[in-house]
Amino acid sequence: MEAREILNQVKNGGISVEDAEKYFKKQPFEEMGYAKLDSHREIRSGFPEVVFCSGKPDEYLKSIYQKLYELNGEVFGTRASLHQYKLVSEVLPDVIYDEIPHILKLELKDKKHNGKIAVCSAGTADIPVAEEAAQTAEYFGAEVERVYDVGVSGIHRLFAKIDILQEANCVVAVAGMEGALASVIGGLVSRPVIAVPTSVGYGASFNGLSALLTMVNSCANGVAVVNIDNGYGAGYIAAQINRLAL
Amino acid sequence: MEAREILNQVKNGGISVEDAEKYFKKQPFEEMGYAKLDSHREIRSGFPEVVFCSGKPDEYLKSIYQKLYELNGEVFGTRASLHQYKLVSEVLPDVIYDEIPHILKLELKDKKHNGKIAVCSAGTADIPVAEEAAQTAEYFGAEVERVYDVGVSGIHRLFAKIDILQEANCVVAVAGMEGALASVIGGLVSRPVIAVPTSVGYGASFNGLSALLTMVNSCANGVAVVNIDNGYGAGYIAAQINRLAL
Amino acid sequence: MEAREILNQVKNGGISVEDAEKYFKKQPFEEMGYAKLDSHREIRSGFPEVVFCSGKPDEYLKSIYQKLYELNGEVFGTRASLHQYKLVSEVLPDVIYDEIPHILKLELKDKKHNGKIAVCSAGTADIPVAEEAAQTAEYFGAEVERVYDVGVSGIHRLFAKIDILQEANCVVAVAGMEGALASVIGGLVSRPVIAVPTSVGYGASFNGLSALLTMVNSCANGVAVVNIDNGYGAGYIAAQINRLAL
Amino acid sequence: MEAREILNQVKNGGISVEDAEKYFKKQPFEEMGYAKLDSHREIRSGFPEVVFCSGKPDEYLKSIYQKLYELNGEVFGTRASLHQYKLVSEVLPDVIYDEIPHILKLELKDKKHNGKIAVCSAGTADIPVAEEAAQTAEYFGAEVERVYDVGVSGIHRLFAKIDILQEANCVVAVAGMEGALASVIGGLVSRPVIAVPTSVGYGASFNGLSALLTMVNSCANGVAVVNIDNGYGAGYIAAQINRLAL
Amino acid sequence: MEAREILNQVKNGGISVEDAEKYFKKQPFEEMGYAKLDSHREIRSGFPEVVFCSGKPDEYLKSIYQKLYELNGEVFGTRASLHQYKLVSEVLPDVIYDEIPHILKLELKDKKHNGKIAVCSAGTADIPVAEEAAQTAEYFGAEVERVYDVGVSGIHRLFAKIDILQEANCVVAVAGMEGALASVIGGLVSRPVIAVPTSVGYGASFNGLSALLTMVNSCANGVAVVNIDNGYGAGYIAAQINRLAL
Amino acid sequence: MEAREILNQVKNGGISVEDAEKYFKKQPFEEMGYAKLDSHREIRSGFPEVVFCSGKPDEYLKSIYQKLYELNGEVFGTRASLHQYKLVSEVLPDVIYDEIPHILKLELKDKKHNGKIAVCSAGTADIPVAEEAAQTAEYFGAEVERVYDVGVSGIHRLFAKIDILQEANCVVAVAGMEGALASVIGGLVSRPVIAVPTSVGYGASFNGLSALLTMVNSCANGVAVVNIDNGYGAGYIAAQINRLAL
Amino acid sequence: MEAREILNQVKNGGISVEDAEKYFKKQPFEEMGYAKLDSHREIRSGFPEVVFCSGKPDEYLKSIYQKLYELNGEVFGTRASLHQYKLVSEVLPDVIYDEIPHILKLELKDKKHNGKIAVCSAGTADIPVAEEAAQTAEYFGAEVERVYDVGVSGIHRLFAKIDILQEANCVVAVAGMEGALASVIGGLVSRPVIAVPTSVGYGASFNGLSALLTMVNSCANGVAVVNIDNGYGAGYIAAQINRLAL
Amino acid sequence: MEAREILNQVKNGGISVEDAEKYFKKQPFEEMGYAKLDSHREIRSGFPEVVFCSGKPDEYLKSIYQKLYELNGEVFGTRASLHQYKLVSEVLPDVIYDEIPHILKLELKDKKHNGKIAVCSAGTADIPVAEEAAQTAEYFGAEVERVYDVGVSGIHRLFAKIDILQEANCVVAVAGMEGALASVIGGLVSRPVIAVPTSVGYGASFNGLSALLTMVNSCANGVAVVNIDNGYGAGYIAAQINRLAL
Repeated sequence: MEAREILNQVKNGGISVEDAEKYFKKQPFEEMGYAKLDSHREIRSGFPEVVFCSGKPDEYLKSIYQKLYELNGEVFGTRASLHQYKLVSEVLPDVIYDEIPHILKLELKDKKHNGKIAVCSAGTADIPVAEEAAQTAEYFGAEVERVYDVGVSGIHRLFAKIDILQEANCVVAVAGMEGALASVIGGLVSRPVIAVPTSVGYGASFNGLSALLTMVNSCANGVAVVNIDNGYGAGYIAAQINRLAL
Repeated sequence: MEAREILNQVKNGGISVEDAEKYFKKQPFEEMGYAKLDSHREIRSGFPEVVFCSGKPDEYLKSIYQKLYELNGEVFGTRASLHQYKLVSEVLPDVIYDEIPHILKLELKDKKHNGKIAVCSAGTADIPVAEEAAQTAEYFGAEVERVYDVGVSGIHRLFAKIDILQEANCVVAVAGMEGALASVIGGLVSRPVIAVPTSVGYGASFNGLSALLTMVNSCANGVAVVNIDNGYGAGYIAAQINRLAL
Repeated sequence: MEAREILNQVKNGGISVEDAEKYFKKQPFEEMGYAKLDSHREIRSGFPEVVFCSGKPDEYLKSIYQKLYELNGEVFGTRASLHQYKLVSEVLPDVIYDEIPHILKLELKDKKHNGKIAVCSAGTADIPVAEEAAQTAEYFGAEVERVYDVGVSGIHRLFAKIDILQEANCVVAVAGMEGALASVIGGLVSRPVIAVPTSVGYGASFNGLSALLTMVNSCANGVAVVNIDNGYGAGYIAAQINRLAL
Repeated sequence: MEAREILNQVKNGGISVEDAEKYFKKQPFEEMGYAKLDSHREIRSGFPEVVFCSGKPDEYLKSIYQKLYELNGEVFGTRASLHQYKLVSEVLPDVIYDEIPHILKLELKDKKHNGKIAVCSAGTADIPVAEEAAQTAEYFGAEVERVYDVGVSGIHRLFAKIDILQEANCVVAVAGMEGALASVIGGLVSRPVIAVPTSVGYGASFNGLSALLTMVNSCANGVAVVNIDNGYGAGYIAAQINRLAL
Repeated sequence: MEAREILNQVKNGGISVEDAEKYFKKQPFEEMGYAKLDSHREIRSGFPEVVFCSGKPDEYLKSIYQKLYELNGEVFGTRASLHQYKLVSEVLPDVIYDEIPHILKLELKDKKHNGKIAVCSAGTADIPVAEEAAQTAEYFGAEVERVYDVGVSGIHRLFAKIDILQEANCVVAVAGMEGALASVIGGLVSRPVIAVPTSVGYGASFNGLSALLTMVNSCANGVAVVNIDNGYGAGYIAAQINRLAL
Repeated sequence: MEAREILNQVKNGGISVEDAEKYFKKQPFEEMGYAKLDSHREIRSGFPEVVFCSGKPDEYLKSIYQKLYELNGEVFGTRASLHQYKLVSEVLPDVIYDEIPHILKLELKDKKHNGKIAVCSAGTADIPVAEEAAQTAEYFGAEVERVYDVGVSGIHRLFAKIDILQEANCVVAVAGMEGALASVIGGLVSRPVIAVPTSVGYGASFNGLSALLTMVNSCANGVAVVNIDNGYGAGYIAAQINRLAL
Repeated sequence: MEAREILNQVKNGGISVEDAEKYFKKQPFEEMGYAKLDSHREIRSGFPEVVFCSGKPDEYLKSIYQKLYELNGEVFGTRASLHQYKLVSEVLPDVIYDEIPHILKLELKDKKHNGKIAVCSAGTADIPVAEEAAQTAEYFGAEVERVYDVGVSGIHRLFAKIDILQEANCVVAVAGMEGALASVIGGLVSRPVIAVPTSVGYGASFNGLSALLTMVNSCANGVAVVNIDNGYGAGYIAAQINRLAL
Repeated sequence: MEAREILNQVKNGGISVEDAEKYFKKQPFEEMGYAKLDSHREIRSGFPEVVFCSGKPDEYLKSIYQKLYELNGEVFGTRASLHQYKLVSEVLPDVIYDEIPHILKLELKDKKHNGKIAVCSAGTADIPVAEEAAQTAEYFGAEVERVYDVGVSGIHRLFAKIDILQEANCVVAVAGMEGALASVIGGLVSRPVIAVPTSVGYGASFNGLSALLTMVNSCANGVAVVNIDNGYGAGYIAAQINRLAL
């Protein structure tokens, strides 16, 4: 019920003042003690809630997977361990675990994937983060083209795939070490590029800081950046952008 | 001419081997000695080139404004000084200077603005960067709603404008100091949020580093970040996103 | 005895010069070789000494728990391991271990809790630090209201608890990642906010540095900050503030 | 009017649905274009709004000083320049400028100062920040004792004033360079210590970063920290704490 | 004289023990009070000494230009101001000042330039540093090809000049902002790439730190890095490398 | 075939338009799903591809060693573990593992080593990185002289080996802690010095950051720097430089 | 009077209880409002107080120079400006200003200088800091040998002066850029080396941070470090060390 | 033999030219392949070589302990593990291991300890580093007074020991967390203070960086700093200073 409707009912005696007051104070979440389930998340954002598995106590993880599966008929979690996969399998035997991006999911069978996103990785070591982005975007309904191992040390590999990039509604560029890939792609496409620095590298890569700075300072237009190793965040915003194009 | 067409003409004798060879080596830019004008920029990106005025020598700035105006019938520059305004006025008397965002522009009169972008600023000191974003997005064809001075120290001001944010195709969130605005907005809207940290603040703001880190670490989904004070970059990518929604 | 009293007694022959000299040189601590027990701590601060368990050798920990229990009839330690719990149980069988905040304590049974402090956490992962703050404040006599999982990505959860915050003598705001919670609360309440950045997060959170900078740069008034993960420090100062209000 | 009262009047026909709806949507601030005056600030925080003068355009500063003076009969601003003093004098001839802390104020004549706060500075170069804290706390009703130039290089100067510190409801410790003063005071008093790092120093002081880290890592209990050079923030929270003791 | 020759002469009585002793203690520099002129520099390194003009007192600069000109018939200085140009002109009227790279030089007329070095800049703002590198390498005898404004935001400009890069004995890559140019070139050529980060950029470029990290982390092989804005150092080592190829 | 040759053949009917088109679109890499083998690497750089073993899945590592051995008759990998040695031994029984630099290689028996490179280490703890550099340069055909444990704390050890350094075509200087070795060598030789900071040290060495900064700021000419612990990168560029001298 | 003596006099009636009490509370400093003159400094440290001139208001500086001159017959200040020299000349016409190290002093005529300290600088640009160290040590009674411009880029210059260094009671090593000088000297002498990093340099010297880290990480024994550009601090501690040797 | 003596003998035919030449080229170290034993260390520095055990291969450690014991009749090593203790015991059964500071030593029985050094620690967790300093100084002949657990949170404990500090020739101040102890001691004594930051702490202590900055910025005179956790370095330089006083 909208505010105006409630007020009208108050005037008409349809609901009491006390009930109306409660309504204005009612909050859109469910109190679970250690957590407050954000039950209005999908209403606000259009995307159902996703589970960040890392560090969740066993019992909590199991019950949250069950509850979200009941609510939505599907459930998707990131940064899950093999142990957590076994745990959740006890209650959701069909749950699938992809150990490369550490994703634990049970998706609707008939999901449509519309609009195209390209997810690129600079090296093979960046693939776990790239897959997290790709599978997140797929979960949120996008069709994803993977373009992996196209870093600037052999830039001809990127040019061989340039059509895929130029046709996508959004490009996710995943790179560690010096992270130059995002700028190069930004100069070649007309759609937004979401850059994901990774912690791949050593020495002065400072666990991704170097790639993060590279991407934030991109000389190319149309590049915006998410946190180091945050494939999920890139997949999410890429799916938001893709949705606008449908 | 596409590659296949050229090769066909070579076979048929329509063009000589020497001419075809030149074609494959021809590059889409104009050599100006100290610079290489990227004449294919609009073909690749869909947006005409913009002038970064800061530090450009006087004569070069004048000629580039003239040349771009001739090419496109309009021209747009950022980080311009009052001195540069006077300079360009000599050759383009109708050029307009907005000293808050330091923008120097001469826009097409009949430009259509389609799709809506919201540009928010946390404080009044962030307005120069916010205006750079807003006017950039307008130059690239978006309609912009400004929502200024809605920082989290008085968060009711933001809630009063929540409808504007929720209806926009993209929200640009501009904030210095601790930069919390982007996360709060990210939790309230369903469209992408482009966050712009500003150098507003003192002490441990470290010229925008604090706000940059805040925004990169946003706990809300759908937030991506550009460089400190890079209003132009945010306006550009917001216009790209908005264009997808048309 | 106060200095003047001693001097009077010296004059009157009540005590010898030698004894008076000793008094002026007597120091309010007990020498234990590897440590100097600060026996005047409670006299100076009004709060009894607390044990920082981490890294204490086994034998030392046991004897210090015993000694403090004998002195005060209660004892409270932070950052204790399960191993240390078992160890101390041997000498203090009633000692209680809470493994979430790693607190090992044996409190007086009839402790009164006066004045109200609110302890908020942004996410569930911040709860260990929040509990350290809450239980510390309780040990020092405050009544504590816990408001957990109210981070800014779903800010309506915070507003649902706003009454609790506004009624507290002091609010402790515990948050990792971007740490925006402290600023938002600072803008909503009239009492001091003690902000605790946590090391929760990844990538550019740099183990809590991002949240620390956010909180130090808070645009809201009335926010002061303690060290990363320093729930104990926040609980201590919150209890000091609360005590002033009684 | 409280929410329940409005709803009752709606039921009784005292106000129309449309009017009630407006009320629920009315926001507690005044839109001024470039700024949103937070007119509910005092209702939420108990302290009237203060002006951060630095960077405010001339005309805006004059009108905001006038408006706040009309509202409250007094007005207080920080980081004001001599130029701004002359400017505001034109409309408020009795305004007073203290060039050490750069404060521009016109206070109520009969203001009571209750409760005692001690403001300490390590060196004479820290006095501008210390005075900003002291005068802020005085503006908000506290009585302030100044204890300046008591840094740890000659720690006997601090001990000579120890009574003042131990009797205060809150101690503000202002120090640059290595910032050790806050820890030393924290070990000597039973009330909260608000530590203010300053940018005084050179070389590896890194404009206050060294002092900030020192204070955040204080080994003494009861120390919380505000931003570098943020005397205002320290005075504000000290006044909040002091108010609780009245 | 070599050591063995001296010893032989001592044995033969050709030189006295005292003279030989002096020889072993004689140092290859000239004491000038405030400085020690490294007169053996060219003997050790093969390149004559170069003047770092910035900050040199007027009289000292004049005399050092004169002395080096007398010694070598030419003289070369970096980071010179217009004022210093006028100053040196008084004693060396033919000295030439290039205000873009701030170079002040008087070169031998018949200098041969052998071997080819390519100096690339990402943007026009990087040209001052690139020119410092180019003119330094020329002074040390290399032939230099300039390839300016070929940054990765329009990477086709670089590919149009790829032949020049692939034919050079060494490539100097000068770039600010994100500094991606060095990695891209490193992946395309078979000769060493000397990367020079510049302080061009703003915000998170942190005065060249971002570009420095990018270049140090290059995923391409064959890239080594000099200090931020150190065009001279890059030109020097490029000339050393080039000399090996002759 | 070069582009001109193909075009001539098209004109002459030697190859069809369709075949020529394929050629222009053919990419010089082999798609392997998770990776794109850069088969043109040697054509572009003159050096065959090297394996970065760390983190490679077992099956992939085995197949890549086999494939590269088939292609080149030799194979060289860095950062290999003992486990990986055993693994690769199953398919290439003659592969050799050097556990100090973690190199896993099978080299051509009759390889010629021409031109001389000197590899210096400051301490014995820097030897693993120095050996990575030395063996890399040897794999690429250089003759390497090792000069180990010649750090500046006993600088006479370096002077005892000065002839070796002054005769080399390139010197690799490997040092951790304060990294002063590179500057000292830079002042003593006429050939390029490639400096490798190592993560050897503790405390304020910050895992090699201190040595990196030292080397980047070298006051001596002719020093360029690679990433922390990047012995491979130094050996590679040293081999490139050495090759120019042959 | 010692404490025991006072107590004896109290007993004997030599002084009253009230007077004795005052004595125990009397503090060894003089309250000047904005400052507390540390009148016991020389008693505690053996060296008279020195003036840090930078930022002192004119009137205060004049009076403090006068007062210290009256007390000690000499006065010494660092970081003084030309303006301050003129100012102090009005009251102390014989005061001497050395504009290189910015020292403003009036020394006792017959001062003895005992024990030898060597002060070394890496470059000529480091001389201002080196002179601050040298003249400070001289003011405190040491004999100082200056060894300037002996940086590691031409290390033979240092070896030419090695006798001076090896004979000194303490060596002060002043260097900017990469700061390698301190380690090299540390390896050559048997006495303590006090290292002073300077802000000389550019780019990745980060205003002295690089040199500071170099010196703190020195691989040579016997090196301790003071703040960036802190020549005074180095001269002070060198004088303390030298005094022990007399 | 001194240089002059050799030359005289050459003249007199006492030694041949060839032998003299060898002498001038003979280096004062022993080549051991992986290391160059600095056999002239004691001649240059007056202190015998010490073993940094951490990371030394087993066989090398055993042989170096044996060799040094043979040479000097004693041997001293830092950062040794329990495993290394057992290892060395096999060849030197009387070797003693102190597991707190990780020191493995076999000292001369009749060693004299002259001159007094005070070693202070702020907390008990700093004792391992303090003991490394103390035992190092003892090995080099100093008498050491330990003053542990005297941090500034209970500063009366320090004052109780002030006599010990004021009588020492040198004070070593060891502290982690905020590291304020060094400044406080610097203000109280007349002899040099060698400050050792430790990595004790958490959060914003950044593994000792905070304490390092505190100590480098000390407002007290007479404080110089060594690397984080470098107890050995502090003990070494303290012994050097102490030796000057004998």
